[in-house]
Amino acid sequence: MWAMTRTFSIVGAGLAGTLMALMLAEDGHQVEIIESRPDPRSAGRVGGRSINLALSERGIHSLAEVGLDQAVLAQSLPMRGRMIHPAPSDSRGGDGAELTFQPYGQEGQAINSVTRDHLNDVLLQAADAHPGVTLTFEHRLIDISFPRRTVKLRDGGGNLFERRFDTIIGADGAYSHVRLEMQRRGAFNYSQSFIEHGYKELTIPPAADGSFRMDPNALHIWPRGDRMMIALPNVDGSFTVTIFWPMTGDRSFDTIAEGDAAALRARFREQYSDVVDDLVDLEADYFDHRIGRMVTIRCWPWNEADKAVLIGDASHAVVPFYGQGANAALEDCGLLRAAIRDHPDDLAGAYHAFGADRKNDADALADLALANFIEMRDHVASPEFLERKARERELAETRPGEFTPLYSMVSFTRIPYADAVAKAAEQERELFS
Amino acid sequence: MWAMTRTFSIVGAGLAGTLMALMLAEDGHQVEIIESRPDPRSAGRVGGRSINLALSERGIHSLAEVGLDQAVLAQSLPMRGRMIHPAPSDSRGGDGAELTFQPYGQEGQAINSVTRDHLNDVLLQAADAHPGVTLTFEHRLIDISFPRRTVKLRDGGGNLFERRFDTIIGADGAYSHVRLEMQRRGAFNYSQSFIEHGYKELTIPPAADGSFRMDPNALHIWPRGDRMMIALPNVDGSFTVTIFWPMTGDRSFDTIAEGDAAALRARFREQYSDVVDDLVDLEADYFDHRIGRMVTIRCWPWNEADKAVLIGDASHAVVPFYGQGANAALEDCGLLRAAIRDHPDDLAGAYHAFGADRKNDADALADLALANFIEMRDHVASPEFLERKARERELAETRPGEFTPLYSMVSFTRIPYADAVAKAAEQERELFS
Repeated sequence: MWAMTRTFSIVGAGLAGTLMALMLAEDGHQVEIIESRPDPRSAGRVGGRSINLALSERGIHSLAEVGLDQAVLAQSLPMRGRMIHPAPSDSRGGDGAELTFQPYGQEGQAINSVTRDHLNDVLLQAADAHPGVTLTFEHRLIDISFPRRTVKLRDGGGNLFERRFDTIIGADGAYSHVRLEMQRRGAFNYSQSFIEHGYKELTIPPAADGSFRMDPNALHIWPRGDRMMIALPNVDGSFTVTIFWPMTGDRSFDTIAEGDAAALRARFREQYSDVVDDLVDLEADYFDHRIGRMVTIRCWPWNEADKAVLIGDASHAVVPFYGQGANAALEDCGLLRAAIRDHPDDLAGAYHAFGADRKNDADALADLALANFIEMRDHVASPEFLERKARERELAETRPGEFTPLYSMVSFTRIPYADAVAKAAEQERELFS
Repeated sequence: MWAMTRTFSIVGAGLAGTLMALMLAEDGHQVEIIESRPDPRSAGRVGGRSINLALSERGIHSLAEVGLDQAVLAQSLPMRGRMIHPAPSDSRGGDGAELTFQPYGQEGQAINSVTRDHLNDVLLQAADAHPGVTLTFEHRLIDISFPRRTVKLRDGGGNLFERRFDTIIGADGAYSHVRLEMQRRGAFNYSQSFIEHGYKELTIPPAADGSFRMDPNALHIWPRGDRMMIALPNVDGSFTVTIFWPMTGDRSFDTIAEGDAAALRARFREQYSDVVDDLVDLEADYFDHRIGRMVTIRCWPWNEADKAVLIGDASHAVVPFYGQGANAALEDCGLLRAAIRDHPDDLAGAYHAFGADRKNDADALADLALANFIEMRDHVASPEFLERKARERELAETRPGEFTPLYSMVSFTRIPYADAVAKAAEQERELFS
């Protein structure tokens, strides 16, 4: 089969952009990555807004396609289940209350806590080292002319210039500029929907002897009804902690006045008593970090003929509660590469086939992620939930191949998201009703 | 009650903008209208894209609030029902086939065909004549700074200038720039969703003696499964005809090659045989007018504190199939005026109350409008539909005050849209099940 060599302009040097670049370069294409920000390897990190990633099968498989899975996993920690920290009002609650551990899957299955920075560095380093990939930082996309196939860019010095392009891959995230240009072209369906909660990142540092202050092989959850806190382990012995609170109303971000350290500490002592003393820098973290908001983005179509296609958050940003946003973005890369291989002389056909195949799965994931927020913050502590999970585990063990819990299909297989949801509904009818 | 006099900057001199200006000026406020286009009264009209409006109770009532209902209705034609033109494949079809007339409501009830231009002219004239209203044409909104309360405008000569504002009302339509500026401020929910059909406007001119070529007191429909054509009468003896066709596929816009007059005429002879010879300028109309697309827009919140609020299509554009888009926009004006009167010293509260009260109704209307496309193009010709309508009419006559068909609640009352939908569902349970 004759394969055409093309020049891909990828906008965005994040997870999807760098992996996509590597895959296309491996297939013999020329790739340039255009990124508005400075090179993160030299510019230092911007902290306080990055929820840790839970890398699972889809992401790992995609990294393995370019041989990077081990390099990434070397700096990760397996989380084998949820560790539930009971609420103070709970009968089991208060200091010294019993923690509940709920395995995510079968023996040996885990999701992997990794920082976005580490994952991005490994990908960026590999892309940079590949002769087929050119990296251009501090170049902001200003405008695309699809009819003339030109882009306008502005460099770090404020200079504007225009270039021709062959084809663009928009990997520029939830606030994608490539998508905005496609939206201006006409009948483009688009929605952005924010949840009413915000989030803020805190830290539990390692103990004085460098050890973890909690079990490092779990994702810790403090379910608190319509609010929650979670913590994911880091290889340096710390935990990245995230609170998800309503913006207004009872126990919301609104109820802690700017700089009121006493009220803040009291709130945590009341609600998160078992770790309040481990949150050593609570006041600095809380008052320095701004509140993040979480958005679901859906759009269609994902491509503009053979001129542009969207991947990752640019076409399907989801809320973080299923731990699948990054995994889905990485999975996109393998699927788009396969579509391009399958349509060697028809790039518009490849782009369209990729989107037509993937759109339902992206929509299914968006719904799963929204629903899992309710589950994590409210249901995981209930006896019914524990019973249900126990029954699922039993079925999975006694009827292997016949029953796979939805969480396992999403996290430990590459069954397309929409198929996983359909299969789970079928199992539900057969086994639980 | 002490009422504060404010200065409102209304962006957009369309139906909602001009009526809102009149209402606020009547209440003693200062109002300026800023419009990007030239004054339509001197600039001539842009034809070919304006579906006629079907003015009904909500719109008429709103116009009556400023005493303009009679001036508008003087140049309108009452349409007392649907006139269904059967399909050629229909057993009753072909030339000389029987038309079916379906009344919209009770004796004396009608929706009123009026051109957007006439309605806009009456409103613009009245706004211009009011000492409290300033009209500024050819000034395009470029940017809003909400923190500094300034707008940047560009005039027709390309000059940029900046002004302070007191408060802004965004009445700038489905592609609202005011909304875009609000969207940039943060957690703003927004969706735009296009239907897969396009539309094109044609004309049936008056007969040689100046008379109407069809019944002028009906809305004519040629239901054709997943396509349709409609015609609304104009006071000059002509009809404005609109085809709603799929963009691609069977009998779509795609299937008529650019300039292929023979294929076009043949298609109309086959599908719309009873009027094909009345479409005198079919070829010129069809090939000169571009295909319009139809969008549903939903967003939230509708206001930015006391600094800006959206009305009409800017906050809730709907597809045209229930004939309610303009009626809803005009109704918004009365509701927003009432909210401002109810909160004389709290404009943020007024804006919020208006939106909180109206959002559900706007969503209900959006759904009704989408559903009515299916009804108009597909169901109106079926025996089941005719039977159902006959039964509804019978119930409405025999049980007045107890049963009102949904169409009548929407078109002939001011019952809030969401309440009308709820009441119709309740009637359905009680009377039809």
